[in-house]
Amino acid sequence: MPIIVPEGCSPADLASLIDHTLLTPTASSLQVIELCEEAVEYGFASVCVPPLHVSLATRRLYGSAVKVGSVVGFPCGYHSLRQKVQETADLVAIGAQEIDMVIALCHLLENRPDLLEEEIAQVVMAAHHASVKVIIECCYLDTVQKIAATQATMKAGAAFVKTSTGFAPSGAQVDDVQLLAQTARGRIGVKAAGGVRTLSSCQEMMAAGATRIGTSSGVHIVNEMIASTAL
Amino acid sequence: MPIIVPEGCSPADLASLIDHTLLTPTASSLQVIELCEEAVEYGFASVCVPPLHVSLATRRLYGSAVKVGSVVGFPCGYHSLRQKVQETADLVAIGAQEIDMVIALCHLLENRPDLLEEEIAQVVMAAHHASVKVIIECCYLDTVQKIAATQATMKAGAAFVKTSTGFAPSGAQVDDVQLLAQTARGRIGVKAAGGVRTLSSCQEMMAAGATRIGTSSGVHIVNEMIASTAL
Repeated sequence: MPIIVPEGCSPADLASLIDHTLLTPTASSLQVIELCEEAVEYGFASVCVPPLHVSLATRRLYGSAVKVGSVVGFPCGYHSLRQKVQETADLVAIGAQEIDMVIALCHLLENRPDLLEEEIAQVVMAAHHASVKVIIECCYLDTVQKIAATQATMKAGAAFVKTSTGFAPSGAQVDDVQLLAQTARGRIGVKAAGGVRTLSSCQEMMAAGATRIGTSSGVHIVNEMIASTAL
Repeated sequence: MPIIVPEGCSPADLASLIDHTLLTPTASSLQVIELCEEAVEYGFASVCVPPLHVSLATRRLYGSAVKVGSVVGFPCGYHSLRQKVQETADLVAIGAQEIDMVIALCHLLENRPDLLEEEIAQVVMAAHHASVKVIIECCYLDTVQKIAATQATMKAGAAFVKTSTGFAPSGAQVDDVQLLAQTARGRIGVKAAGGVRTLSSCQEMMAAGATRIGTSSGVHIVNEMIASTAL
């Protein structure tokens, strides 16, 4: 099967849709510096780094177009609302411009979308000008719950709904991206993350409606596209 | 191979060494209530629950001998020191009596045991009378790093060193428990956690020097012992 490059989409366009991500527990300062350098070189949308490394990433990316992103309630989502709000405020204060928060799954599983919406709204408020992406961890949810989570995300004023943390039993699925995009109807973005490691997987997610891709394989993916367009 | 029950150790003694644990991302209020009831019935040392459920567990266990434990920087450990201190203070304020914190692994990997010791000491201070168990996530560390982490844990005044979160590629290993116990020399406790699901595995860990076991299979393990002593 030939690789399908979206019409009119250059490698730079593709890079601008990728959050260049490093969220392994062993992430080191040196790896974060390398990540930032790659992000500038390739023109990724952002780097997504652990809270501990946000200060460093902010310093390394100062003056560049690459945004600094980090995570809240990650990856389990079962922190208190107070903790999530504090985490968010702390991260924004030291330079984070994008916040990927994990929802408290129990609110959905216990059929309390009101608590979920409240949680997201408070994080959105604490984030001020930073964009909030809401990770709903699709693999634990049924269709109705995925729709409810996306609707709560929209009502609460977040910028994106995001499929997965990459720490659960499964990551982004094409079906889920389609469902989230259909529910969002262009009012918020859809971020596919977790297991997106190749250009073809990236393109499948985009065809399904993803407007942002979270991956630690951004360099590989863009290089694949550069190689394919050079043919 | 016959099951070896430690001499003079009753099922109740065994239960008193177990942290009855529920840390799956989907943990619900109903599951936490059930966990608390089992903990009282069996006489477990504590329940270990997500931050979001600490208030509920505190209410359900009020007046019992079972302690309420929760987690900080869990499971990746890469939060800022400020976030870990805030999380700890919040949890203690709502009733947590045991705090299982995950270290920032990068401090060890970047050979900065001083930063690690400072991090643990600050969490110990924020925890006041609550015991702090320090999760060093052995599977990412070499022998020298495991020893350094245990030494930092002792110097910083924590109560336990703990092998694993249960979220990493591997959990408690007998060799690691031995190494940690040899390093601790009885000055702090050693908690084995991650993958301890049977009585024989529990006994292996105790024989290697574990003084506390973290498991979500506590009921099964104690029932196994009751069944074996009834033979």
